Amino acid sequence: MIRRLTIFGVGLIGGSLALALRRAGACKEVVGCSRSENHLRQAVELGVIDHYTLDPAAAVAGADMVVLAVPLGAMGGVCAAIRDHLAPDAALTDVGSAKGSVVDAVRAGFGELPHGFVPGHPIAGTERSGVEAAFPTLFQGRRVILTPLDTTDIGALAKVRTLWELTGAVVETMSVAHHDEVLAATSHLPHLLAFGLVDSLARMGERDEIFRYAAGGFRDFTRIASSDPVMWRDICLSNREAILSVMAHYQEDLTLITEAVSRGDGERLLEIFQRAKAARDRFCE
Amino acid sequence: MIRRLTIFGVGLIGGSLALALRRAGACKEVVGCSRSENHLRQAVELGVIDHYTLDPAAAVAGADMVVLAVPLGAMGGVCAAIRDHLAPDAALTDVGSAKGSVVDAVRAGFGELPHGFVPGHPIAGTERSGVEAAFPTLFQGRRVILTPLDTTDIGALAKVRTLWELTGAVVETMSVAHHDEVLAATSHLPHLLAFGLVDSLARMGERDEIFRYAAGGFRDFTRIASSDPVMWRDICLSNREAILSVMAHYQEDLTLITEAVSRGDGERLLEIFQRAKAARDRFCE
Repeated sequence: MIRRLTIFGVGLIGGSLALALRRAGACKEVVGCSRSENHLRQAVELGVIDHYTLDPAAAVAGADMVVLAVPLGAMGGVCAAIRDHLAPDAALTDVGSAKGSVVDAVRAGFGELPHGFVPGHPIAGTERSGVEAAFPTLFQGRRVILTPLDTTDIGALAKVRTLWELTGAVVETMSVAHHDEVLAATSHLPHLLAFGLVDSLARMGERDEIFRYAAGGFRDFTRIASSDPVMWRDICLSNREAILSVMAHYQEDLTLITEAVSRGDGERLLEIFQRAKAARDRFCE
Repeated sequence: MIRRLTIFGVGLIGGSLALALRRAGACKEVVGCSRSENHLRQAVELGVIDHYTLDPAAAVAGADMVVLAVPLGAMGGVCAAIRDHLAPDAALTDVGSAKGSVVDAVRAGFGELPHGFVPGHPIAGTERSGVEAAFPTLFQGRRVILTPLDTTDIGALAKVRTLWELTGAVVETMSVAHHDEVLAATSHLPHLLAFGLVDSLARMGERDEIFRYAAGGFRDFTRIASSDPVMWRDICLSNREAILSVMAHYQEDLTLITEAVSRGDGERLLEIFQRAKAARDRFCE
């Protein structure tokens, strides 16, 4: 049982986590903190948090569990603001999509890595954002990756694992570097490709028409491209190396496909398409 | 009212068209023809067609409406087989995703373009294929593009337009070249990108993991990449020039994005992502 849960950034993820834990009867009190009083007031009205403060130091006072659900670019600032106020035995976790940069930001903000810090990443979300989009079953059956560090206290790890299991998520652990590579491939690159395609086509002539005839293929891309631009900018800046590595790989492969189209090499194209379909059909559902 | 509708290729599209027209009470008799007797027998059992023949000449005898729903690569062969048997006043249409190549195939197969020929393309489909995937509402509310030619008889155009309207589709007309450019951008390129991404990642190490953590972004890509490889090979070969043109455009833009990530240019990335999201939010729903 969590006595006092403090959530920095009460948006889709932070808000849904609060709702899920309340529904599970897993915490007595939920405190919200962010830079927007309007959003926090809305979160109270929606029953997502019990009360709020705009002061990070006050927010963590008495908290035994602190969750950083702010954008990647804001993690360091929050840590610097709470470093002298966080209880030494409090568990601290985050929900950032790129773990290496969060670890750096926490280290910089605190001066050293707190033993209670357990980096985390729920693989969940929708294209919507903000606390009004939050719902308690967002994490049900979804994976949450924890990337414990050498400095991480084993008790804090157990607490954070339980926190996520109470939301219905499946918790796994891996290294920070491995997380960032896997997510660059499965999430960050696809989002870059989708944003790029929608922007590319939107800047072509007759864009009304291009969107009007958006068939299956493009429609899926446009949905991905409606994700929060600020969040994705932060992710690109935070996981730069892993993204560049997988992007280079992809661009080479794309050039091979383009060359096959160019020389009318149906055999090569069929081979690629069949391999992709086989991989997909084998691993997905 | 269609007296005898002949459908070449009774798969997802051909089968759904037959079901929709039967449900609308728009045709007396539906004849199926393809190279697979098994599929045709299944189509009869499913109530999609009334009867079938493996002989194209016999299939078009007495038909006042003929629909070519075979793969792009098979259009020419069917045309050559029916050229001396199609009634001069019969309407002939197709459902191919690339119109220029179908027009070439029909011209080659018939020796000249029949006046009854109205090239068409329903912008509809699912990742599934085959007659067992057919359903009568597939075209409901979807767009169907007709690309009438200089040679096209105005009566045939009206008949084919009515055919599609009876399925609940919204019919529009445009030129062959314009259709092929728009579809290269909105459908063919996205499919190539998705096949490429899934294949690229599947060939990386630890692919189990890559698919296991497939989050929102990648999941949408994998769904697209489960489309029929043979159909997509044919489309790539049939609409080569338009695809290469839009691909070149996209690859340039992708390089600009990659460069922005590489130099940590958050402003540029945010600009691209916001522009994409704005275009999407403006044009879609």
